[in-house]
Amino acid sequence: MSSDAAIYQGQRALSAKEVRLAIREGRYDRHTAGLAAGKLQCNLAILPEAYALDFLRFCQRNPKPCPVVGIADTGDPFMRTLGDDIDIRTDVPRYRVFRDGVFTEEVTSITDIWRDDLVTVALGCSFTFENALIANGIPVRHIEQDKTVPMYKTNIALTPAGVFSGEMVATMRPIRADRVDDAHRISAAFPHAHGAPIARGPSSVIGVADLNTPDWGDPVAVEDGEVPVYWACGVTPQNVLTNAKLPFCITHAPGHMLIADVSETLEVNPPKY
Amino acid sequence: MSSDAAIYQGQRALSAKEVRLAIREGRYDRHTAGLAAGKLQCNLAILPEAYALDFLRFCQRNPKPCPVVGIADTGDPFMRTLGDDIDIRTDVPRYRVFRDGVFTEEVTSITDIWRDDLVTVALGCSFTFENALIANGIPVRHIEQDKTVPMYKTNIALTPAGVFSGEMVATMRPIRADRVDDAHRISAAFPHAHGAPIARGPSSVIGVADLNTPDWGDPVAVEDGEVPVYWACGVTPQNVLTNAKLPFCITHAPGHMLIADVSETLEVNPPKY
Repeated sequence: MSSDAAIYQGQRALSAKEVRLAIREGRYDRHTAGLAAGKLQCNLAILPEAYALDFLRFCQRNPKPCPVVGIADTGDPFMRTLGDDIDIRTDVPRYRVFRDGVFTEEVTSITDIWRDDLVTVALGCSFTFENALIANGIPVRHIEQDKTVPMYKTNIALTPAGVFSGEMVATMRPIRADRVDDAHRISAAFPHAHGAPIARGPSSVIGVADLNTPDWGDPVAVEDGEVPVYWACGVTPQNVLTNAKLPFCITHAPGHMLIADVSETLEVNPPKY
Repeated sequence: MSSDAAIYQGQRALSAKEVRLAIREGRYDRHTAGLAAGKLQCNLAILPEAYALDFLRFCQRNPKPCPVVGIADTGDPFMRTLGDDIDIRTDVPRYRVFRDGVFTEEVTSITDIWRDDLVTVALGCSFTFENALIANGIPVRHIEQDKTVPMYKTNIALTPAGVFSGEMVATMRPIRADRVDDAHRISAAFPHAHGAPIARGPSSVIGVADLNTPDWGDPVAVEDGEVPVYWACGVTPQNVLTNAKLPFCITHAPGHMLIADVSETLEVNPPKY
């Protein structure tokens, strides 16, 4: 086992809070897949307050790719509704910084560039429904093969809001034909994590020419007896944010998510019984 | 049949668009329960843009009472994501206007007081899950008795955002004990319409002394073999808005909802299969 892999294996036994502390203290900066089992992991969009209302409108109008699970107060670096002592400036393994729509740097802390006008928006992540698929005996190919899920720019137009517009980005997972309906039902139970698939079948249905050449991530083979199934992807909001050419914004690096203390079932106001 | 009741019966056969036109033209100003079957009905909060970001944060943090289903652009009186030609200034039967937190007038049009800085937020409504309960053979007492659902101020603290804070308002429906779990499951399928109940059993669990004296609406009897079941209520955001003493805001009058063209299942980005 390589040193990196050993460090990753070591993280798997830790709680969400312990993983965040390791990240905060610079002891861990790798991807977060499989860490803190059962806890909600989140995509991040950190942007100036002047754009926040339109961005929230955009997310509300496009809930499949942009399911909002937390919004911090303006200038507040703590995600108070997602857990205890979540410092958004230090508790994510890797961040990407964009200036005027151009990716300028990948960093492991944003403390030095934090601003009092920033609003952090946390969005659900496909790890949540992938965990549920696996728990229900539906294997997920890219996880089995230790690859990054293949992601594609589709021709599915999103509903615009202010400067935010574009097409949906989708992920593809090959599912055995007799489990496709189960995969739909299982993922539909997590509307805050992209929910049910947005399409299935040949990639032409979402305007994609060739599944072997994803726009992000790694290609995975679709075997005999399997159907390509497509879900809305958390790269969509990142793509839309950078297309909008905001003067300044920050996202997590793909796969390097915020790990919250709340459950991935995200039950708010749980019933009193 | 009274003239009012005849007019109401006449509306029941109309489409959402036809009902809105009758409202717009001043031919209908009564409650909307049971109209345009299968279409989404919405609570409304119309407030200055300066407060909109915090109000959306409040709704995101308290999704059970405040499920956002639509947000108009600032100053735009049309709810473009909820249907065709929905003019929020004229298409709701009755509005309530509040100035500095004080209810000042109930009107049937807000065209004269519309402002370019207003943001309209539409929120889901209990009519949606009530329709589903009835369709699944679970009767709803206040509908059977032609009463307004009883609503109670609870001791359930909401998560604040900016000037918005307070306690949840809940509705109560008596459910036969052997159908309580079904009622939970059926309403849970509509997270955009208050979702699953927030409590069941004696009213003390939500800090309410006496079910016979609701804070709004009419009392309904809980019969032998029935359990009082409590849901988060769309009066909560109205209550929170007025408590915040905004200089200006507008809501619908209780029961007099916006009827959208979209289905009450509110499927956005429906799957391509």
